[in-house]
Amino acid sequence: MHIFERAKQIALVNSAGSILSWDQETYLPSGSAEYRSEQLSYLAAHAHGLATSPEYLKSLEDAESSDDGTDTTVSANLRELRRESERSVKIPTDLVARESIAQSAGHHAWIAARKDSDFSVFAPHLQKLLNFALEKADLWGFKDEPYDALLEGYERATSTAEIASLFQNLQKQLAPLSAQAVANTTAAKPELPSGPYPITAQQDFNALVAAEIGFDFHNGRIDTTTHPFCTTLGPKDIRLTTRYEESDFTSSLFGIMHEAGHGMYEQGLPAADFGLPSGSAVSLGIHESQSRLWENQVGRSPEFWNKFYPIAQQHFSQLKNFPLEKFLKYIHRAEFTPIRVESDEATYDLHIIIRFQMERMLLNREITVAQVPETWNDLFQKSFGFPPENDANGCLQDIHWSMGGIGYFPTYTLGNINAAQLFHAATSDPEIKKATAAANYAPLLDWLHKNVHNHGASYNPTDLVEKATGSPPTTEHYLKHLSARYL
Amino acid sequence: MHIFERAKQIALVNSAGSILSWDQETYLPSGSAEYRSEQLSYLAAHAHGLATSPEYLKSLEDAESSDDGTDTTVSANLRELRRESERSVKIPTDLVARESIAQSAGHHAWIAARKDSDFSVFAPHLQKLLNFALEKADLWGFKDEPYDALLEGYERATSTAEIASLFQNLQKQLAPLSAQAVANTTAAKPELPSGPYPITAQQDFNALVAAEIGFDFHNGRIDTTTHPFCTTLGPKDIRLTTRYEESDFTSSLFGIMHEAGHGMYEQGLPAADFGLPSGSAVSLGIHESQSRLWENQVGRSPEFWNKFYPIAQQHFSQLKNFPLEKFLKYIHRAEFTPIRVESDEATYDLHIIIRFQMERMLLNREITVAQVPETWNDLFQKSFGFPPENDANGCLQDIHWSMGGIGYFPTYTLGNINAAQLFHAATSDPEIKKATAAANYAPLLDWLHKNVHNHGASYNPTDLVEKATGSPPTTEHYLKHLSARYL
Repeated sequence: MHIFERAKQIALVNSAGSILSWDQETYLPSGSAEYRSEQLSYLAAHAHGLATSPEYLKSLEDAESSDDGTDTTVSANLRELRRESERSVKIPTDLVARESIAQSAGHHAWIAARKDSDFSVFAPHLQKLLNFALEKADLWGFKDEPYDALLEGYERATSTAEIASLFQNLQKQLAPLSAQAVANTTAAKPELPSGPYPITAQQDFNALVAAEIGFDFHNGRIDTTTHPFCTTLGPKDIRLTTRYEESDFTSSLFGIMHEAGHGMYEQGLPAADFGLPSGSAVSLGIHESQSRLWENQVGRSPEFWNKFYPIAQQHFSQLKNFPLEKFLKYIHRAEFTPIRVESDEATYDLHIIIRFQMERMLLNREITVAQVPETWNDLFQKSFGFPPENDANGCLQDIHWSMGGIGYFPTYTLGNINAAQLFHAATSDPEIKKATAAANYAPLLDWLHKNVHNHGASYNPTDLVEKATGSPPTTEHYLKHLSARYL
Repeated sequence: MHIFERAKQIALVNSAGSILSWDQETYLPSGSAEYRSEQLSYLAAHAHGLATSPEYLKSLEDAESSDDGTDTTVSANLRELRRESERSVKIPTDLVARESIAQSAGHHAWIAARKDSDFSVFAPHLQKLLNFALEKADLWGFKDEPYDALLEGYERATSTAEIASLFQNLQKQLAPLSAQAVANTTAAKPELPSGPYPITAQQDFNALVAAEIGFDFHNGRIDTTTHPFCTTLGPKDIRLTTRYEESDFTSSLFGIMHEAGHGMYEQGLPAADFGLPSGSAVSLGIHESQSRLWENQVGRSPEFWNKFYPIAQQHFSQLKNFPLEKFLKYIHRAEFTPIRVESDEATYDLHIIIRFQMERMLLNREITVAQVPETWNDLFQKSFGFPPENDANGCLQDIHWSMGGIGYFPTYTLGNINAAQLFHAATSDPEIKKATAAANYAPLLDWLHKNVHNHGASYNPTDLVEKATGSPPTTEHYLKHLSARYL
């Protein structure tokens, strides 16, 4: 069997696992969590077994030795499959199975811990998941610190040191910017007319907006979950989720624009190459650039609302006599909140930087798991000027660590940076600028298809950004965007 | 690995496949059907590969040779795993994969064919699925006719000849009984107050009734599909589906009581033995006895409605001034309808007998696929006195053949017969009779747990019925029940 067929077969198994995970978050009866974790563990181990089998490695070698380099996509696929394979073979299959079980258990413990704001319930699970992360980092090997090895799994071809330096620079400029933005908001006190914004009306409006910006419901759908996400269950099966607040329709709407951004990336990948690097997203930092571009560059722009505010007014009677100008002030407010997912553009990255620092300290054994709440609160206090009122709104707020996702957080800020840079490059084209100004997004999506989506994982993330925008990722456009919007 | 561990591992894979199938019927985006069929095909082939591997057979032999017979459950499990294994090894894995793809394609073609009432769209798929059935029957081998080999997969330890003789006898008595029942209904013209019966009220009432008769929502749920079913996605994850008609709430309600009957059987199986014969349903005929028992013996009984009619009246304002007596007449009406799933107890088995005859003729090559519509209409005319108005309401009405389920239909009538016999035996206990008369169903469910569910597949279906009721399956109680209710 050709290596590409094998890779596609592994994608069948992994996407089957994604269906089970999606169902776990959306519809699973409460009594069935344990068995579901066994089903997931089996599929994860089976996929890993396939990807590390002698037959797989033999097929890869055969294809490499017969590759004459004339088809650059083939060569890129072989190069990336080799890179992935070198990581995979270092991890024993039984570790994959055990880690999958620990992730399920950790996830459930985290839900309970967060509900009661009781870190002690989650601590032994976090310790276990941290041990898995350290074990894997050791197996993979790393240049400077364990974080490098984990980061590579989410954002290839960068380093912890590079991220740290980028973040240090960003924080320096973001600290005064966000403080000023928050001060402005505090003075203006922008408000939204009070709810309820009926959930069915929110669902209608969300679906209308998602379709209008280009999400294809023929190959996707929206469901409701506690924690919104986007997942790919097949090349033409992209599922978004959201949650609804009756007091504020914008929370779910921007959530859906965010997830639809992820979804349109997945829908823009070459479907025939599903399972191959050329048919896969390149990194989480690029993935997040797509979600943040649609959520923030587009969704929070005045141009978007010139067109969609009248439609929102038809859906929500409260808005009838509420002027667009006030609405824009409301969605451009900046606040120091303890919760990352409720935070605005002007303060978001400060939340990420705390998590990055925490993870690094944990992996470098500079702090213990028991010290997580205290360290979190200290770092938060330093950035925001007040401590979170409890651990539920502090170190227990995020789902990521509970599912073993250590090293994941920096990609959010990379996404913000890339989103601004890509949006700036796309709208430098006068046709796209004009269309976007009229809230016609087909040309923008087209540009993203051509310059980002269609390439899959054929280039490294920074090379992809440079190819698309003419320069490697820089904070320049992002900071300009934040200043323009918030100052 | 012990053979029981291997069997449980195969159940992990098969139940993962069931999740994919459930999602296919409930939430799959329309563009993704083809890839889903590939995912399902992979999992089916993988499970079959595990069940026919040399390692599996070696483990089975090892366990057999070390079984000293002291644990009857162990011995029964080994006996049944051996029986299943002997069937499995006769089918090549690639046939499983190809058949799975053909079933998905057939299912989609059937949907289109039925929609347009165009048999020619489905015919080539039916031919393909029939060929698979014949190929498998030849591989399995059979005593008298190919039908024997297929029937064994749904209802073990019986024969086509036995079913034919049972059905012949039943038809003889059912023909005058159903004609009289229909004549009575035609004279009385029972009606339900007109709708709409709001779907949300139907959902509330269905859930209330399902919980009240004993379906455990902690380990299960209800969703909406075009074709109602019950499926098991894990030992504690039983999913029911239904559809809603705004003009008649009883359609969905009896559907849910039916599916909940299946579901309570699954929930009553020993969860720790999930994947072993002792933790699996024994046959479709016994499965259907559980669904029909709750739907018809319980759900259409006056005792049930003495308690639940006032609650229904609270849910549906139309019923407020509609007397219980008239309502009972409505749910006890008998009609000659072309559609099996809309037919009543008094006429249901006449529909099944047609299907059984059709399948037998197809497998014995007495008719061709092209002759299916004509033969169907002839047989229908003979039983019901008029032909179906088109193929959508004739030979295209059922989902079963489109998914390769040839040999499945007789189990519906076996279910009706067994339901009556089991209900009669259970209510021969004065305590259960008393509780059931007061619509308190915990003792009845308890009896079913003890006498049917807990045994899993440890006994053959007829032995199980004899153990529970004191006699092998007979039409006696079923015909008595129908006479009492409909004449």
